[in-house]
Amino acid sequence: MSAMMRAAVFVEPGRIEVVDKKIPDVGPNDALVRITTTTICGTDIHILKGEYAVEKGLTVGHEPVGVIEKLGSAVHGYQEGQRVIAGAICPNFHSYAAQDGVPSQDGSYLNPKNACGCHGYHATAGWRFGNKIDGTQAEYVLVPDAQANLAPVPDGLTDEQVLMCPDIMSTGFKGAENAHIKIGDTVVIFAQGPIGLCATAGARLLGATTIIAVDGNEHRLGIARQMGADVTLNFKNCDVVEEVMKLTRGKGADSSIEALGLQQTFESALRVLKPGGTLSSLGVYSEDLTIPVDAFAAGLGDHKILTALCPGGKERMRRLMEVIDSGRVDLGLLVTHEYKLDDIVAAYDLFANQRDGVLKIAVKP
Amino acid sequence: MSAMMRAAVFVEPGRIEVVDKKIPDVGPNDALVRITTTTICGTDIHILKGEYAVEKGLTVGHEPVGVIEKLGSAVHGYQEGQRVIAGAICPNFHSYAAQDGVPSQDGSYLNPKNACGCHGYHATAGWRFGNKIDGTQAEYVLVPDAQANLAPVPDGLTDEQVLMCPDIMSTGFKGAENAHIKIGDTVVIFAQGPIGLCATAGARLLGATTIIAVDGNEHRLGIARQMGADVTLNFKNCDVVEEVMKLTRGKGADSSIEALGLQQTFESALRVLKPGGTLSSLGVYSEDLTIPVDAFAAGLGDHKILTALCPGGKERMRRLMEVIDSGRVDLGLLVTHEYKLDDIVAAYDLFANQRDGVLKIAVKP
Amino acid sequence: MSAMMRAAVFVEPGRIEVVDKKIPDVGPNDALVRITTTTICGTDIHILKGEYAVEKGLTVGHEPVGVIEKLGSAVHGYQEGQRVIAGAICPNFHSYAAQDGVPSQDGSYLNPKNACGCHGYHATAGWRFGNKIDGTQAEYVLVPDAQANLAPVPDGLTDEQVLMCPDIMSTGFKGAENAHIKIGDTVVIFAQGPIGLCATAGARLLGATTIIAVDGNEHRLGIARQMGADVTLNFKNCDVVEEVMKLTRGKGADSSIEALGLQQTFESALRVLKPGGTLSSLGVYSEDLTIPVDAFAAGLGDHKILTALCPGGKERMRRLMEVIDSGRVDLGLLVTHEYKLDDIVAAYDLFANQRDGVLKIAVKP
Amino acid sequence: MSAMMRAAVFVEPGRIEVVDKKIPDVGPNDALVRITTTTICGTDIHILKGEYAVEKGLTVGHEPVGVIEKLGSAVHGYQEGQRVIAGAICPNFHSYAAQDGVPSQDGSYLNPKNACGCHGYHATAGWRFGNKIDGTQAEYVLVPDAQANLAPVPDGLTDEQVLMCPDIMSTGFKGAENAHIKIGDTVVIFAQGPIGLCATAGARLLGATTIIAVDGNEHRLGIARQMGADVTLNFKNCDVVEEVMKLTRGKGADSSIEALGLQQTFESALRVLKPGGTLSSLGVYSEDLTIPVDAFAAGLGDHKILTALCPGGKERMRRLMEVIDSGRVDLGLLVTHEYKLDDIVAAYDLFANQRDGVLKIAVKP
Repeated sequence: MSAMMRAAVFVEPGRIEVVDKKIPDVGPNDALVRITTTTICGTDIHILKGEYAVEKGLTVGHEPVGVIEKLGSAVHGYQEGQRVIAGAICPNFHSYAAQDGVPSQDGSYLNPKNACGCHGYHATAGWRFGNKIDGTQAEYVLVPDAQANLAPVPDGLTDEQVLMCPDIMSTGFKGAENAHIKIGDTVVIFAQGPIGLCATAGARLLGATTIIAVDGNEHRLGIARQMGADVTLNFKNCDVVEEVMKLTRGKGADSSIEALGLQQTFESALRVLKPGGTLSSLGVYSEDLTIPVDAFAAGLGDHKILTALCPGGKERMRRLMEVIDSGRVDLGLLVTHEYKLDDIVAAYDLFANQRDGVLKIAVKP
Repeated sequence: MSAMMRAAVFVEPGRIEVVDKKIPDVGPNDALVRITTTTICGTDIHILKGEYAVEKGLTVGHEPVGVIEKLGSAVHGYQEGQRVIAGAICPNFHSYAAQDGVPSQDGSYLNPKNACGCHGYHATAGWRFGNKIDGTQAEYVLVPDAQANLAPVPDGLTDEQVLMCPDIMSTGFKGAENAHIKIGDTVVIFAQGPIGLCATAGARLLGATTIIAVDGNEHRLGIARQMGADVTLNFKNCDVVEEVMKLTRGKGADSSIEALGLQQTFESALRVLKPGGTLSSLGVYSEDLTIPVDAFAAGLGDHKILTALCPGGKERMRRLMEVIDSGRVDLGLLVTHEYKLDDIVAAYDLFANQRDGVLKIAVKP
Repeated sequence: MSAMMRAAVFVEPGRIEVVDKKIPDVGPNDALVRITTTTICGTDIHILKGEYAVEKGLTVGHEPVGVIEKLGSAVHGYQEGQRVIAGAICPNFHSYAAQDGVPSQDGSYLNPKNACGCHGYHATAGWRFGNKIDGTQAEYVLVPDAQANLAPVPDGLTDEQVLMCPDIMSTGFKGAENAHIKIGDTVVIFAQGPIGLCATAGARLLGATTIIAVDGNEHRLGIARQMGADVTLNFKNCDVVEEVMKLTRGKGADSSIEALGLQQTFESALRVLKPGGTLSSLGVYSEDLTIPVDAFAAGLGDHKILTALCPGGKERMRRLMEVIDSGRVDLGLLVTHEYKLDDIVAAYDLFANQRDGVLKIAVKP
Repeated sequence: MSAMMRAAVFVEPGRIEVVDKKIPDVGPNDALVRITTTTICGTDIHILKGEYAVEKGLTVGHEPVGVIEKLGSAVHGYQEGQRVIAGAICPNFHSYAAQDGVPSQDGSYLNPKNACGCHGYHATAGWRFGNKIDGTQAEYVLVPDAQANLAPVPDGLTDEQVLMCPDIMSTGFKGAENAHIKIGDTVVIFAQGPIGLCATAGARLLGATTIIAVDGNEHRLGIARQMGADVTLNFKNCDVVEEVMKLTRGKGADSSIEALGLQQTFESALRVLKPGGTLSSLGVYSEDLTIPVDAFAAGLGDHKILTALCPGGKERMRRLMEVIDSGRVDLGLLVTHEYKLDDIVAAYDLFANQRDGVLKIAVKP
């Protein structure tokens, strides 16, 4: 193992570059993973643009597929050379937050000396790769709390088949889980980017029988139908709320999933609901949201609004890979492009500008 | 039974008056109840002021305690002369909405001829008394779907002891139930009016061990302590969010209950939460709400926001009266005043202006 | 409408015969439905054999597909001539039991004069057709609490397509719902008769990714694969518990569904579980059950055992028909035979003896 | 720190003795705790009698209260000298089982080299102290996965006040949690030993309003009333099932808790239930159980049977200590006797023979 590696780092707003960096040392609870495939997320674009601040010089990226290079002395049950993934969110499951049911919100590592005193809850703090510690767009990544976070890839699955599991699929499926789908439900999914498409696939997997996918892009609506949508609505051509009311004969949808992060989609996701319905929100909002008092039935509509951060951990990853392995869902068609790590600047450019029908890019060190 | 009765009706904005009105006929699924005690709700004040529109001439009020005067031909298992209450919300439990888990949102009666076609969901439509049909501030009230809604009062309980059950207690306790309290939780209840006080009592009953009651009125905070609050915070004297963070050593509350209906309390109820926490909203909002993006962790905080309309039905009423009967909770001290029905105009005046430490008024036909 | 109809009635143990019977009168909350298709259930065989006692002269059968002939005066939102089904279990949703979440256990009608005093819970008492009141193997059936129980059939669905909804599908799917399936779960379904096959289809619909169907009949295992089973095990050829442990690499299944009603299947359903797993029981047991202390981990295995009676009501029926209408599940292939009502004795003979690969029989008045 | 300590070890069936033993070394994820108070559990009696097999020479006991003597190098957020407890069950929360929601069933440590391959589920395997590793009836105990399991004791609480948290309270309260108590529920708790008494206190804390405690010992029934029971039934003087049916006017209890481990109590716990009710089982059974077919409504009663192993982890311990600290529940009165560690043989004798009104014994090294 050479002492140095290539890694894409945040330099300054507008600049992510591939540089040489030291391969990290492995502590007792860590694992060093050699990346074979990773990808770029919408969040990385926010980092690139300086809209979300990370430390200069930090390696970016949070979606690892790779091979165990070296295991910490206290990590058991794995072999070096084994193919693994890890979630975009790598919680310490020993934490108060994890034991309390919200591992993604674990910030116990942020100030470990005080982990006990402050209970260690910090919003989104379970997200470490490419945020608080070096990320996955590199030749190697150090996985913290490896015993909790390394998930072996089943034989026979390719990197591309499991590349969505660490973030996109885990997030999208959580959106469907938070929609509390019951047999025979009608679910409306707003926005059919990679996460919205996974939410659509998740709603199908969980038993919704009328799945309505909304977007302004006909190509994505086409993929939505492949993912399981029964009905697609192009918001450029119709009034989505009105259409849903027609389709449900005035009742409204049982639940809706917001997968974009805008006032307009959030508001429509509320307006399509039946009284008693659930809004499952996945979007990352950059501005204050308004809840229109009429759509909210003045607070008397038995509505539920749930948000989620991508669930992580090896059990979550195992379950998602089971879905892939069983053939229930094929996310391979979301990987539309491939780039070498050394060409990642071009990949960012393509992805940031959403050219060429790009959905997700496989990046290969 | 005389053919006429006294009833408080909405005349025009600013005027509710007691008039003579025909005692209604009893259909096969109805029951006629002779009111022995009823009360005035904050919603009635909105009706009085014309802020919430009802038909002119409608009898107002929705909190009945009384005696069965006459049973419909298809209503079984009750006796005339039996003491009963009914919920403020009187759902038709045969409806799609009720079978789907949200009886309070049942509007199947609104257009009964079309009940089947439209599924019959309409926000708050389960609320009929003093809203869509004649209410309880009268000598007699007709209870619809009586088989579902008449709840016998246990022997030994006074009218005053059960007067909170139809609305205030059912709503406040639902606020506590929606807070999903686990053993050892910290819960913050915003506003200690009658509903907030019941939410405080409900949080205590359900096992929260740090109950923080917030209000600007020291007298109400004193009653909050009697209802089970461990800590009371007067928002006039402190920064509530900061205090909660101190009390929870930076973690935030497990859940919060909003019991007023203002932007400020809604927002504070969100800001006191731990990531992963639940905001249980009871307030009736009259304006659009803003969700500050920081308090919402940009949509990534695993937050839950739940609203509720007062649950009704005889099983709900039975359970609430069990709570009273077991001595777990004493809501008698919320009934601070008594008026005759014929003096209800004065009672409205006292209640609307919140004079004389009034919490709830027993109104006696 | 003629005053008389043909109806299959229980005469004495061993004899069910088609006789002439008066068409019943329609009370205010009833509906008279002209049966177009019904079927025979395993329970009917128990009645035929005298193993389950019903009153002599009672019309048997509890799975109605038909057309509204006449509506009670208090039933709204339907039209005479409309195609409908009703659940095998026809609860009074106004009852305490229904409002408490277990409508199938509502016995409020059993002694209506005392409905209020006794709370009206009686095990299985929600089952009325062909048990406590005249059933569906007749030209006409009277549906009680029609407002709650009549479910319109979507245009375009045939009688055969919805014939499983009233009982077999509702029961089988409830078995899958009680299994608390999470994304990526392994579920084992014991016995692939009509209900087990529906449980298999339900587990597939709800997101299980390793579905293991068990039976001793290869033909049924073949249908199980069509219904969504990933793996089929013939208990005559292998040790089922051992095979499940192999397939789950020693962990055990997340849940199991018992769909037969024997000690052996119940016990195996327990033995295949992981610690923390759920046994969802659908079988009708005729003898005491034994829980082996080792399989039960001495009571320390965080096991759950849940039983269920078929859910009824128009909302349940609506949802199940949505599943059919969406094309998610095709239960048409479970209807293997057709008989005229007047030939029902022969149909009973075929079904009781499980000849000719019979699964379910369409019976046509 | 001396290199040797006193420890009570299992010698052979019938003999537990205090011997000198080496103080263990501290690995990176361990903590060494100096025991200040521990206690004897019913399970220890089974070990003493040879009814439950442990390795000869193993230190017994699993209920630690103490002071951190030394922290492993990878354990953060604690200070040496800090007062702590740990659960009787010390799971590795990084494991598949814990991430899957059943930490108590985590056996990943049993064969750590293979932790990954076998998923690591083994019934009761989360129980390590005094079962698979040296326990707490000693001067020192090594806490595994200390980051997950060390729970600081709030200032002002005595050892005796928190001595029930690691096992008795956690188990008893889990019994109440598994009973799924709703506001106004009736709950019957069978057996009022220490765990049953905690289940009674837990049912009170969670909002049951009719709590019926059953035992054959009047002294214990008296303590049950102090713990919150509304009604006590001495099974020697009445037919418990019949009495519960009278108290619930024929409906049955909403849930029951079995806290002994015998066929008779299990069966009665089933027979007192309403259709739709929940049996929450805590007992450790030593023989096969029989489910009488009539009590089980032939499998059609919508019954739930749930078992549980004591939940562990620092968050659980924190919550239980909050309950004590809030004054909601006082378990001090369960500690009836005190012995020195060197006199533990006499303490075992007293406890095994249930002499002198013993409930729990504080053992002091």
